[in-house]
Amino acid sequence: MSGNTFGKVFQLTTFGESHGAAIGGVIDGCPSGIELDLQAIQKDLNRRKPGQSAIVTQRKEPDEVQFFSGIFEGKTTGVPIGFAIFNTNHKSRDYDHIKDQYRPSHADKVYDDKYGVRDYRGGGRSSARETASRVVAGAIAKQFLPDVKFTAFVSSVGDIKLDKPYHNLDFDFIEQNPVRCPDPEKAAEMEDYIKKIRKEGDTVGGVITGVIQNVPIGLGEPVFDKLHAELGKAMLSINAVKGFEYGSGFEGAQKRGSDHNDLYNTDGTTKTNHAGGIQGGISNGMDIYFNVAFKPVATIMQSQKTINNKGEQVDMQGKGRHDPCVVPRAVPIVEAMAALVLADFTLLNRTIKK
Amino acid sequence: MSGNTFGKVFQLTTFGESHGAAIGGVIDGCPSGIELDLQAIQKDLNRRKPGQSAIVTQRKEPDEVQFFSGIFEGKTTGVPIGFAIFNTNHKSRDYDHIKDQYRPSHADKVYDDKYGVRDYRGGGRSSARETASRVVAGAIAKQFLPDVKFTAFVSSVGDIKLDKPYHNLDFDFIEQNPVRCPDPEKAAEMEDYIKKIRKEGDTVGGVITGVIQNVPIGLGEPVFDKLHAELGKAMLSINAVKGFEYGSGFEGAQKRGSDHNDLYNTDGTTKTNHAGGIQGGISNGMDIYFNVAFKPVATIMQSQKTINNKGEQVDMQGKGRHDPCVVPRAVPIVEAMAALVLADFTLLNRTIKK
Amino acid sequence: MSGNTFGKVFQLTTFGESHGAAIGGVIDGCPSGIELDLQAIQKDLNRRKPGQSAIVTQRKEPDEVQFFSGIFEGKTTGVPIGFAIFNTNHKSRDYDHIKDQYRPSHADKVYDDKYGVRDYRGGGRSSARETASRVVAGAIAKQFLPDVKFTAFVSSVGDIKLDKPYHNLDFDFIEQNPVRCPDPEKAAEMEDYIKKIRKEGDTVGGVITGVIQNVPIGLGEPVFDKLHAELGKAMLSINAVKGFEYGSGFEGAQKRGSDHNDLYNTDGTTKTNHAGGIQGGISNGMDIYFNVAFKPVATIMQSQKTINNKGEQVDMQGKGRHDPCVVPRAVPIVEAMAALVLADFTLLNRTIKK
Amino acid sequence: MSGNTFGKVFQLTTFGESHGAAIGGVIDGCPSGIELDLQAIQKDLNRRKPGQSAIVTQRKEPDEVQFFSGIFEGKTTGVPIGFAIFNTNHKSRDYDHIKDQYRPSHADKVYDDKYGVRDYRGGGRSSARETASRVVAGAIAKQFLPDVKFTAFVSSVGDIKLDKPYHNLDFDFIEQNPVRCPDPEKAAEMEDYIKKIRKEGDTVGGVITGVIQNVPIGLGEPVFDKLHAELGKAMLSINAVKGFEYGSGFEGAQKRGSDHNDLYNTDGTTKTNHAGGIQGGISNGMDIYFNVAFKPVATIMQSQKTINNKGEQVDMQGKGRHDPCVVPRAVPIVEAMAALVLADFTLLNRTIKK
Repeated sequence: MSGNTFGKVFQLTTFGESHGAAIGGVIDGCPSGIELDLQAIQKDLNRRKPGQSAIVTQRKEPDEVQFFSGIFEGKTTGVPIGFAIFNTNHKSRDYDHIKDQYRPSHADKVYDDKYGVRDYRGGGRSSARETASRVVAGAIAKQFLPDVKFTAFVSSVGDIKLDKPYHNLDFDFIEQNPVRCPDPEKAAEMEDYIKKIRKEGDTVGGVITGVIQNVPIGLGEPVFDKLHAELGKAMLSINAVKGFEYGSGFEGAQKRGSDHNDLYNTDGTTKTNHAGGIQGGISNGMDIYFNVAFKPVATIMQSQKTINNKGEQVDMQGKGRHDPCVVPRAVPIVEAMAALVLADFTLLNRTIKK
Repeated sequence: MSGNTFGKVFQLTTFGESHGAAIGGVIDGCPSGIELDLQAIQKDLNRRKPGQSAIVTQRKEPDEVQFFSGIFEGKTTGVPIGFAIFNTNHKSRDYDHIKDQYRPSHADKVYDDKYGVRDYRGGGRSSARETASRVVAGAIAKQFLPDVKFTAFVSSVGDIKLDKPYHNLDFDFIEQNPVRCPDPEKAAEMEDYIKKIRKEGDTVGGVITGVIQNVPIGLGEPVFDKLHAELGKAMLSINAVKGFEYGSGFEGAQKRGSDHNDLYNTDGTTKTNHAGGIQGGISNGMDIYFNVAFKPVATIMQSQKTINNKGEQVDMQGKGRHDPCVVPRAVPIVEAMAALVLADFTLLNRTIKK
Repeated sequence: MSGNTFGKVFQLTTFGESHGAAIGGVIDGCPSGIELDLQAIQKDLNRRKPGQSAIVTQRKEPDEVQFFSGIFEGKTTGVPIGFAIFNTNHKSRDYDHIKDQYRPSHADKVYDDKYGVRDYRGGGRSSARETASRVVAGAIAKQFLPDVKFTAFVSSVGDIKLDKPYHNLDFDFIEQNPVRCPDPEKAAEMEDYIKKIRKEGDTVGGVITGVIQNVPIGLGEPVFDKLHAELGKAMLSINAVKGFEYGSGFEGAQKRGSDHNDLYNTDGTTKTNHAGGIQGGISNGMDIYFNVAFKPVATIMQSQKTINNKGEQVDMQGKGRHDPCVVPRAVPIVEAMAALVLADFTLLNRTIKK
Repeated sequence: MSGNTFGKVFQLTTFGESHGAAIGGVIDGCPSGIELDLQAIQKDLNRRKPGQSAIVTQRKEPDEVQFFSGIFEGKTTGVPIGFAIFNTNHKSRDYDHIKDQYRPSHADKVYDDKYGVRDYRGGGRSSARETASRVVAGAIAKQFLPDVKFTAFVSSVGDIKLDKPYHNLDFDFIEQNPVRCPDPEKAAEMEDYIKKIRKEGDTVGGVITGVIQNVPIGLGEPVFDKLHAELGKAMLSINAVKGFEYGSGFEGAQKRGSDHNDLYNTDGTTKTNHAGGIQGGISNGMDIYFNVAFKPVATIMQSQKTINNKGEQVDMQGKGRHDPCVVPRAVPIVEAMAALVLADFTLLNRTIKK
């Protein structure tokens, strides 16, 4: 109810603030009998963790996950998987200055308004550190669905945009550059731009594209829990996300039906895929693809005017080690959320027929 | 679980196919003591119903709602509100031709794939007729929140787009033109374009903008159930929707932090509102605004190649009376879904503090 | 959330007050492809309905169910099944006297306290008439599980009790007597006693025993959603129920482990069945059996002192046509709730293994 | 969905097997601003822990809880409270003999049947050790409801039963004897009996009575989520429970309405309280009281015939350190579950009225 649980059958509940003892979660409803590759889980965590390259925050957080339950002799047992990532790098002093002050475009003030109390260190619960727990669960969801291929990549940074459709890109290049952009030229351009932005003490937004391939037909529920509605919610729940579109998206809203309709091949596939792999909320077996817009990180290394909790105007200077652009590190989070959605609907889909 | 229920506390469960006996639903968790204006509910239904103007489908469906329970002496009693809209205009014969054939870009085939059986008349459960039940519940949610102002309007049709920000528009003009566009010139242009499209037997997509004003601070839950994540899911669950963005949206992804951050006034409001009224998933009291992209209606009055349920290629000609553009009638649906989300979070927010 | 929905996958949501326009509900998550025997559903409703014999209330309510959706050409389609039973026999005047007065041991006062408003006619939402909707859904759940045998019968009325274990009883006799007791002698004794009680203007409680046979192994979830915990909740949610025990029940609490343990046969069945077919919350394939205690009906045809909504003492005389003993008519309700629980866990159990 | 979460608003999700790294859980929806007395939480854990007296298992488990999140400067912050109790006393070798063998009246076999895999050490997830997490959450729920008084005590062991109603007992004596029985004479008798049973290598069942006092009026939801239905489910979900009754319970089923009805005093209280403080599923402000039946512990120190996972008959001898009678240690678990139910309904009840 309080929004710390995601999914209906394959459920993740997370806990933890960025500067508390630990973050972590419970995965309930993960089927039994999955042989877990723990290194693959850690690998996804490493793709998200700070300090991994020159264009992300230089904080050092090892982000090593410890499992407490639900795994026995290397296999899931069908009971809850409890896990934690202990916080080791608390520079809480970096945050003393925001104890009584509200950072612009952060959640500090609304937390105080809503709860009357706030763990102000590092953003507390609103910190993107929480997403590490999602990456753990998503990595397990991927292993539950070994045939489905989840890919995400950076498709724009500021106004530098990929101009090729995803099927003309080399996905193998994604992890070979720090931006996680599959186009070598654009990747270099984006990397330079992010470095320039950081030098200016500024930040910049970007877009991540997700592609899900080899999706079974029939996932998703009619009406409220359409597959793309849950995917959209999943993505919009990631910190800093401002928009979601799938298939033809906002561009599709300009088209005519005669252009936009996807005509069938006789094998049931479609000649085009404006639908983005989903019809009426249900997967049709074609690729699912979608875009997720991320705003620029709110913490900038420039002086800003803001207010304190007495409503007085104060000057604030960004401190600590922050990302100049969030999208490179958000790529595994997008994949994780996509995997959680598909794992959930895959299980739910087993209950549909007599 | 099967996705026919929306909301956690203020819950709507819907049932019904377009050509069955009735559509309807149950609203559970609506607080007691609300004096209901039944005419206001019917008025919203009329804004959605077919045949209301020259640019929408000419089907005749009175869409009169009957309440079965939960209302006593004009007031809600706190127990479930059951209701139905009986279907009176079944031209099921219009659909005989799709019994065995799959309309392009419709859900016919995936329903057969998923369930092994399908009520093929009028799209069955995947018909947008289901949204009439949402409008009923949304109209009640609005009455629960009399201080919150929900406005939606058409901001683009095809490539004709509003170029003014919402606060420069005259919302009073929305219901004075059949397109439901608040700009008189653009409205006329859009109307002409829709008529032209219809004459060509074609359809066109569009965008609806939603604005929620006078929102209490503190609505929305951290992490998975962020206010904008639920709003996004709500909108993406409406038939034909391909995208959702709020606040600065996809454009915000191009910006720098120094441009994008919303600086505070000393009263806690912000000088700009790129945030779209939501920080960290929680309403901050500023206006919430968002865009919803609708694809063109898939049923066109042109011949298309498609396949039947044996995988054979067949020719199909659109029949029946369909909308050339869905956005004018979808405006009250967007409002209804927004109202359901806010009603739910308003109730949930009562449980947050000691 | 507001407690008008039962089940997680196979879900029933009900609405309706006893003297409103209709009662009914929505069954969501019922699998597609079930050929429905509508007469079997009506038959279960008839077993619950008033006026069926000389020892139950003589109100006339035909209780005919109308289905609105989710059934096409005789089969379930996997989408929500909406249904209603229209109320035809509103003698609301019978209830005018309780508009301002609180009947002893009824829910009148707590409804006023909780909601601030109450549909006082016939108990409104707290009327046992609501259970007719459960019988509809339960009858469909039974058809989803054709191999499982659900039996319920009256095992005591007042202090007249069956003294044989259920496997020594002839279940075929249950529906051949108005009490629904499988022992001819005890049935006659109970019937006479109920008639005597009614003549005295009084009422009496009783116990219903439920037996579920041919249960698949593995139903139920560890920890909170144990099979017997959900069965218990299901039974305790029926009007007038005061207790639930399964297997050895309260008697088992007196036993020693060496007496109580069920030793295995080599085929995995057990020599005794003190467990009542459930181990650790999970069905083990043996018969599930349980007892449900019902208090005496609160409305008696005798004068009682009570208070009105101003806290003044008043005299109250029972009016209308009420049951002297609720258990004969509650037998199909117990079966229905048992069937809903098993249908839900059967579907959920499909999601357990890789 | 998989049944490891309890509650709707005040939610507990638990994880952990008895011989894994840790057990623990996440409490979501706990309101902000509660000053937590951590010692009171540990005190309840100590009342549940092994080795506390001569009549319980002599295993040594310190059961110290560590909190990871959701508490800041001594107060709850409204975000999830993650916690763990690390397992320190793994004598897993005690369980090697049950790797391939099924203990009679344990869940070993159904786990293998259901999941195809099982953590056999100490019963894995079906171990009563899981209830320590419930005690943690229940202790916090009690602190959220400081005015409500939760009391539980042992009212029978084998056939030794308390013969006084609860209001004639001295609750202060409960914690002054190892049985947790408020009657000194009966407590001594029960203690002797348990010691005798243990010497014989046997076990015995018992009954715990719960009393909830100073309950606000209006808690509980009509129809499926009646207050007593949730209480019943909560109790039936505790390991070894076979039955639940509240108010007049099974005895009430023998009574006449004229005896059983609770007549009102002019202040709205009732002269008698057969209702057990709940009318129509909603608390009426009178004491809630209920009985919970526990079967004898299945692990006995005697040789029993059983089968292995090949269906072969084998001899089994109980090993390890087990409770001869579970009820003394289950008293704080009953209180905890009662507190969780009331905390949840208290929050939910804030959403009922306009």
